[in-house]
Amino acid sequence: MIANRCEASERGVRILCDFLTIHNFLIKQGASYTLASDSARFLDRRSPAYIGSAIDFLLSPRLRECHAHLTDAVRHGGTALGEGMLDPENADWVKYAQGMMPMVRRGADIMATELRKEREAHKVLDIAASHGMFGIAVAKQNPGAHIYANDWKNVLEVAKENAVAMGVADRYHLVPGSAFDIDFGNGYDLALITNMLHGFDKSTCTTLMRKVHVALNPGGRAAIAEFVPNSDRVSPPTAAAFSLTMLAATASGDAYTFAELESISKAAGFKRIDLSPVELDRNRLVIAYR
Amino acid sequence: MIANRCEASERGVRILCDFLTIHNFLIKQGASYTLASDSARFLDRRSPAYIGSAIDFLLSPRLRECHAHLTDAVRHGGTALGEGMLDPENADWVKYAQGMMPMVRRGADIMATELRKEREAHKVLDIAASHGMFGIAVAKQNPGAHIYANDWKNVLEVAKENAVAMGVADRYHLVPGSAFDIDFGNGYDLALITNMLHGFDKSTCTTLMRKVHVALNPGGRAAIAEFVPNSDRVSPPTAAAFSLTMLAATASGDAYTFAELESISKAAGFKRIDLSPVELDRNRLVIAYR
Repeated sequence: MIANRCEASERGVRILCDFLTIHNFLIKQGASYTLASDSARFLDRRSPAYIGSAIDFLLSPRLRECHAHLTDAVRHGGTALGEGMLDPENADWVKYAQGMMPMVRRGADIMATELRKEREAHKVLDIAASHGMFGIAVAKQNPGAHIYANDWKNVLEVAKENAVAMGVADRYHLVPGSAFDIDFGNGYDLALITNMLHGFDKSTCTTLMRKVHVALNPGGRAAIAEFVPNSDRVSPPTAAAFSLTMLAATASGDAYTFAELESISKAAGFKRIDLSPVELDRNRLVIAYR
Repeated sequence: MIANRCEASERGVRILCDFLTIHNFLIKQGASYTLASDSARFLDRRSPAYIGSAIDFLLSPRLRECHAHLTDAVRHGGTALGEGMLDPENADWVKYAQGMMPMVRRGADIMATELRKEREAHKVLDIAASHGMFGIAVAKQNPGAHIYANDWKNVLEVAKENAVAMGVADRYHLVPGSAFDIDFGNGYDLALITNMLHGFDKSTCTTLMRKVHVALNPGGRAAIAEFVPNSDRVSPPTAAAFSLTMLAATASGDAYTFAELESISKAAGFKRIDLSPVELDRNRLVIAYR
């Protein structure tokens, strides 16, 4: 019956379903298969928690090619493929915005809640906004806040759609272009820099954080969501392992320790840097105060 | 220092070694790395238990391509790539013979010991001998036995080298060509069919087993080493999962249950078929009696 529905061979479907059973994605009883509970929750397109779209980015041809050239990356100390994933207007970042959204949604809500606890936000800069989830979560928890979302123009279309779908479009403004080139404006009391710093070397991160510092009001906050390994660089596993992805896919990016993020932020002029105890799923929240 | 030795960047080597530490291949203390015990035993080329050579086959381009076209294989019920891995004189089988040898050595010794317990062997046919380890193990435990090793000509060069290295060359004879086409001769009291039947459909397996039946003396044994899943086809995991590899890489191969191997052997004329309780690492030993 599955084979019929999939227009595939019975033999192929039997072997595939057995394989998925062995790996706990399916449950086999006699000759019939049902979804295991994790699969039903996360891999059924009709589930609100569906995360299967993430593979459109995680297994995109360019990213796979980056990893296929890992040996060269280790030899040279950076991606073997030119600018790796960071070439301008790379359409893979549209796939990222569309595909990864369900993976970050929960973390974005936790982050917005944590930031709101400390104080209300009014004018918010969301740098490399991607799917927009982080800025939109802040907009939802700060009903007076206006969000200025920055990213490549093609990517911002995804963020805009999400802002519309989530009812905050009237307070959602687009600032297209490279975060390194455009004018952010100023008067912000909050800036979000989420999953961005890991793509660049420390000096480039410092340059960006200096721009953020200038755009913020005195007392303003820069909220950084990042993979933050411990100082041993081998724990916790997910954050620490992310360095290898950056080695394969970027010229000089890395997963930075809190000490490194602190030193980058201080060099950019920030007074105080805190590591929030909350966990944003795989990310941590670092807050730099102007 | 590692970077220097590898002529690689310090940054690349640091990130790679951290990643290998996270996955328990290395142990990190401060800024230095040592081999974890499993790595020292199995992944150091100087170790007698080195199995790293297996990737020369397991990650060979053709086999990877087979898996890359898995969706098509599921749809059609067999490899998407013509004859898959089974085209004649495919040089990957030389890589298999060279690379997989350390993976099967222990299982080959266990099998030879088990076969010797029951009775001594004199004239032994080793079909699809590959690295020759199974036949050579029998030769070592049966000092009077002569081994007739069959495989493609290019593959038999590896088996011959191993027979020389292990001191049984004077009792080691080559029978090059396809097991389906050549004349095995007769008068054998033992035939070894190791990791071969899974590459073919049941009817082809029966044809081969019938040829073996003819080549054996009355009372002779056919010893089959195979991935043998339980009748649920989802346990034990390694044997059951092997079906997917066959789906990806062959037109109609599979991991057969004992009941299927029994039915194939009986159809070929064998009187009795036993599943030996010993485990040959990932394989099981099935003995068919003429």
